[in-house]
Amino acid sequence: MTAPTPAPIEFWFDFISPFAFLASRQIEALAARHGRTVAWRPLLLGVTVLKVMGLKPLMDTPLKRDYTVRDLQRQARRLGTAFGRPMAAAPMNPLPAARAMAWLVEHRPDAAPAFGEAVMQAYWADGQAMDNTAALHRLLQQVGVDDPLDPALQGDAPATLLRASVAEALERGLFGSPFFVVDGEPFWGLDKLAEVELWLITGGW
Amino acid sequence: MTAPTPAPIEFWFDFISPFAFLASRQIEALAARHGRTVAWRPLLLGVTVLKVMGLKPLMDTPLKRDYTVRDLQRQARRLGTAFGRPMAAAPMNPLPAARAMAWLVEHRPDAAPAFGEAVMQAYWADGQAMDNTAALHRLLQQVGVDDPLDPALQGDAPATLLRASVAEALERGLFGSPFFVVDGEPFWGLDKLAEVELWLITGGW
Repeated sequence: MTAPTPAPIEFWFDFISPFAFLASRQIEALAARHGRTVAWRPLLLGVTVLKVMGLKPLMDTPLKRDYTVRDLQRQARRLGTAFGRPMAAAPMNPLPAARAMAWLVEHRPDAAPAFGEAVMQAYWADGQAMDNTAALHRLLQQVGVDDPLDPALQGDAPATLLRASVAEALERGLFGSPFFVVDGEPFWGLDKLAEVELWLITGGW
Repeated sequence: MTAPTPAPIEFWFDFISPFAFLASRQIEALAARHGRTVAWRPLLLGVTVLKVMGLKPLMDTPLKRDYTVRDLQRQARRLGTAFGRPMAAAPMNPLPAARAMAWLVEHRPDAAPAFGEAVMQAYWADGQAMDNTAALHRLLQQVGVDDPLDPALQGDAPATLLRASVAEALERGLFGSPFFVVDGEPFWGLDKLAEVELWLITGGW
């Protein structure tokens, strides 16, 4: 008998979230330290936070905007990374990348984490586009998804899968970015990484 | 020559904040580990978050409410404490206690931390009132402030001092509860305690 494989850590995110970008630089290594893999799962803040919760975008909120920029810069410095794109700039349309991600989660889970990291890197660190077919095609090829038909980018399937992913998040009460789920336990926010790790070490409390 | 005394850690809070309650159980010990004291500073979420930032109360926000209750219970379990008052119940009027706190910060700083802890304990752990003179008088006596005139509870001075405290918070971009300031560096949220400690250990980055 072999030990059962532990469940992956779920990492829910929106590509437009700078907090999720900083989480994306740490979550795979954190999971690996505890023998876990990461299940990357796209959601859309425009649906969860804006429509369902009725809040305004963080960067449109007085006081919170300035603090958030400072907090993100501070955390990026600690990680030795940097934002190539202004954190407070209007977000690029995340739908094409999120749809491609939802398609990969279903059909090419082996490539999903690398694609997620590649989009985050391109958008947040390198200040590149992630909202058009050419940019996404290049990122898909970069992670070994080079089917010339690009099913991740075409037809209704990616959009349907993304809608289902967002619906699942809402159904399970997961609304923010990043949101981590460890063995059924939800943790919201980049600041929860240390508590996530404590949960993995102790098995929970 | 003696080494200069390091600045206290500022701990901004609203008594109605369950996150600030859990912070109040940890911040003095955290500060002491690094040779610091704590400057307790009252603010009012009804002004900062509701009026200035235009957000709705956390417990009135769909999804966030359920997650927050779960998160608070989880953090309380880890600290070995418990909420004697329902976390999601409508908050009691914090003004009398916050005014008394503002008065102590100015006139009896020696007693301010113990009073802050006593109010938090009475309200959140023991499920008692904090919104009337009798309750506050008892808590003041408990921490050694037993002037029968109770200047902390009478006249305009406490209200004026609280208004100034809230104005200072807004002026400095401190809006949430808890908000910590370490040597000029602001950290928002209970989840920042580990980062606050890292900042104290390293001197910042």
